[in-house]
Amino acid sequence: MNLLNCADISFFDSFIIMGPHSCKDYMPSPGMATSNSSNSLNGAHHYEMMGLPSTPMPWFGMDIGGTLSKLVYFEPKDMTDDESDSEIETLKNIRRYLTKNSAYGSTGHRDIHLQMDNVEVGGRTGTLHFIRFPTSEMGNFLELAKSKGMATLITTVCATGGGAYKFEDSFRREVNMKLAKFDELDSLIRGMLYVETNNPRECYYWANPTDSDRCHKVAYDFSKPYPFLLVNIGSGVSVLAVYGPHDYRRVSGTSLGGGTFLGLCCLLTGCNSFEEAIELASAGDNSHVDKFVKDIYGGDYQRFGLPGDLVASSFMGLYSFGQMNSKEKRTSVSREDLARATLVTITNNIGSLARMCAINEKVNRVVFAGNFLRVNPISMKLLAYAMDYWSNGTLKALFLEHEGYFGAVGCLLAFNEEVS
Amino acid sequence: MNLLNCADISFFDSFIIMGPHSCKDYMPSPGMATSNSSNSLNGAHHYEMMGLPSTPMPWFGMDIGGTLSKLVYFEPKDMTDDESDSEIETLKNIRRYLTKNSAYGSTGHRDIHLQMDNVEVGGRTGTLHFIRFPTSEMGNFLELAKSKGMATLITTVCATGGGAYKFEDSFRREVNMKLAKFDELDSLIRGMLYVETNNPRECYYWANPTDSDRCHKVAYDFSKPYPFLLVNIGSGVSVLAVYGPHDYRRVSGTSLGGGTFLGLCCLLTGCNSFEEAIELASAGDNSHVDKFVKDIYGGDYQRFGLPGDLVASSFMGLYSFGQMNSKEKRTSVSREDLARATLVTITNNIGSLARMCAINEKVNRVVFAGNFLRVNPISMKLLAYAMDYWSNGTLKALFLEHEGYFGAVGCLLAFNEEVS
Repeated sequence: MNLLNCADISFFDSFIIMGPHSCKDYMPSPGMATSNSSNSLNGAHHYEMMGLPSTPMPWFGMDIGGTLSKLVYFEPKDMTDDESDSEIETLKNIRRYLTKNSAYGSTGHRDIHLQMDNVEVGGRTGTLHFIRFPTSEMGNFLELAKSKGMATLITTVCATGGGAYKFEDSFRREVNMKLAKFDELDSLIRGMLYVETNNPRECYYWANPTDSDRCHKVAYDFSKPYPFLLVNIGSGVSVLAVYGPHDYRRVSGTSLGGGTFLGLCCLLTGCNSFEEAIELASAGDNSHVDKFVKDIYGGDYQRFGLPGDLVASSFMGLYSFGQMNSKEKRTSVSREDLARATLVTITNNIGSLARMCAINEKVNRVVFAGNFLRVNPISMKLLAYAMDYWSNGTLKALFLEHEGYFGAVGCLLAFNEEVS
Repeated sequence: MNLLNCADISFFDSFIIMGPHSCKDYMPSPGMATSNSSNSLNGAHHYEMMGLPSTPMPWFGMDIGGTLSKLVYFEPKDMTDDESDSEIETLKNIRRYLTKNSAYGSTGHRDIHLQMDNVEVGGRTGTLHFIRFPTSEMGNFLELAKSKGMATLITTVCATGGGAYKFEDSFRREVNMKLAKFDELDSLIRGMLYVETNNPRECYYWANPTDSDRCHKVAYDFSKPYPFLLVNIGSGVSVLAVYGPHDYRRVSGTSLGGGTFLGLCCLLTGCNSFEEAIELASAGDNSHVDKFVKDIYGGDYQRFGLPGDLVASSFMGLYSFGQMNSKEKRTSVSREDLARATLVTITNNIGSLARMCAINEKVNRVVFAGNFLRVNPISMKLLAYAMDYWSNGTLKALFLEHEGYFGAVGCLLAFNEEVS
């Protein structure tokens, strides 16, 4: 047992990701009963002694996705003085570091605008903080964690998402930490329902999505949610039909998701980040790259209800048939146009899939989530328009403010339910 | 009336595309009743005089697609001596040119292996020839047609496909020809049913599609076809649910088709043709570009039945999460790998769409057609495997030898029915 290792860790040069079983050698304050250090819930035992809910601080939920890692941190605001006094320096440092900064290193960000105050988690009242960093930085995190002797501090990290499996061995090997894994779709739905319930303006739709002057967000009353379709667009896409809090099915999915957009965009334009790809797309015009129905039919293909402004063949070129494969054409298209065409292609394909699933499942509300939609109004408006147009107004595309954080929230909630 | 213009045209440096109303100033043989040259069916009148079916030669059906133009030419083999003697030199030249060559210019090809002998069209017995050329050559064709004075020879070209609309003005303006347009989906189904009926080995499936040693084509008895799904993969994709010869619906489609494959492949690899793109893909490995379920979960994601070898996110990179957007990674991937990943991405997306449509329509036979499948066993086998796997063997992927020619055949048949 080495208390110094536990307390001396610097939290000022990168993330510290800790599960609820955070401090293996957690020390109660003097005069309190000494917890059994072989019990992984020793912190819980300490809180129980204080008559407080049994989960120790800090409370983290982590969703390690293919592109982004999402970290949700719950900061209790209802601490008693006793509790506050008894808290060890390490936990104070964590809180201070996370809540006083909005950027961590060069790639970690806290989304302050998403912060949720006065919410209840595990019987405590406090604030939820939302932090993200590229999953590609995970190797650096593990290196840092190792060099700082994290293994002596943390026994278990609570996580969901593919990365909870992908990095399980690395966590164990590099820093001797276990990952407490939660199913990512369970976590997604649990987190989404929780956040939606606690934030009256969580759910919204886009009014007049194709009119840049009149287009705006409108809050949507989602208090009677079932049934609905949940389309989660991360690196890949999952489509869930949700009939109740614990009653859902994964009805479809596609490998053409945000990861495909980013991968293709980087290959086609030489960009290096999602933000850069979206910025390029915002300045581009896919009509220089795609072929539209009107380019073929001179207007609508009325017999089968295909409007002239429908993309007939993505990446097929505009000016004449079959010209995208000529060298001159390739060099005449801008990076911005290529980024836009990639974004429109991926988005419309997801919209089409969502629409088919909604029809199959006979639901008329389609909720789009996932970090593909972050800083990406182009895709949201395209989806809003497509859902409305192709269904003659019977399908509604809904969006959520906390886009990609639901898995991390759900994971945090699931653990707290499990230990309480 | 200038008979020389009609007879002297050289057919040896490009295509001559003629509709059934081919020769405006067609001259009957001496001694026969002179047809009314203002009647666009003057040739038909001539044949009627001979007691033969009323459509004049040559019989062409043309499908002007986004990438390829498909030309079907019917060569009658039941000509009487009188008929043969009476045929003007122009028509003889056409026949000779088309049937003695298998390549036309540098880009036109006759698919000799697809030739259908002893078939009946419009009451005549003969041979169907199948010819294709890139639609991008259409401008050159019109130039040639103009320079050769085609306008004095041909009044109407019988056509379907988007290009029948796209090029309608050009035909009229450049060479004073009308396009007799037929709906492309009607033509597709009509042609497909006709060819399938007349070719006992037209329809087949792939046995053991994932086993390169045991994989082979097996003829499929399609004599009781209904209902079936017809997935036509040209530049874009249309999905039709077919319940009878004249009873079908376009149930879905996607703009991610053969044109997208070609366009993206050219952009990503610098290749310049479909054949080159397929050749690159054949030598590539998409596992260097895509991210698989097993890369995330270390195996299957069993809870939702997702196998480890399923692509989780196309173009997301393999070696570590989120790395495709790093410059080093981009330069380490080969052109072959990029072509393969593009092919697999587009194919799997179509397979997924087809499967959903089949389930919705409650049909278990899915027929894939269109020139995307030409020289493309990789896609056919992927589709065969995907249909079988995801349906637990209840869905059957079927393929057709004449892949992309059905629209052209249907167009030819439709016209002959219309005039007879």
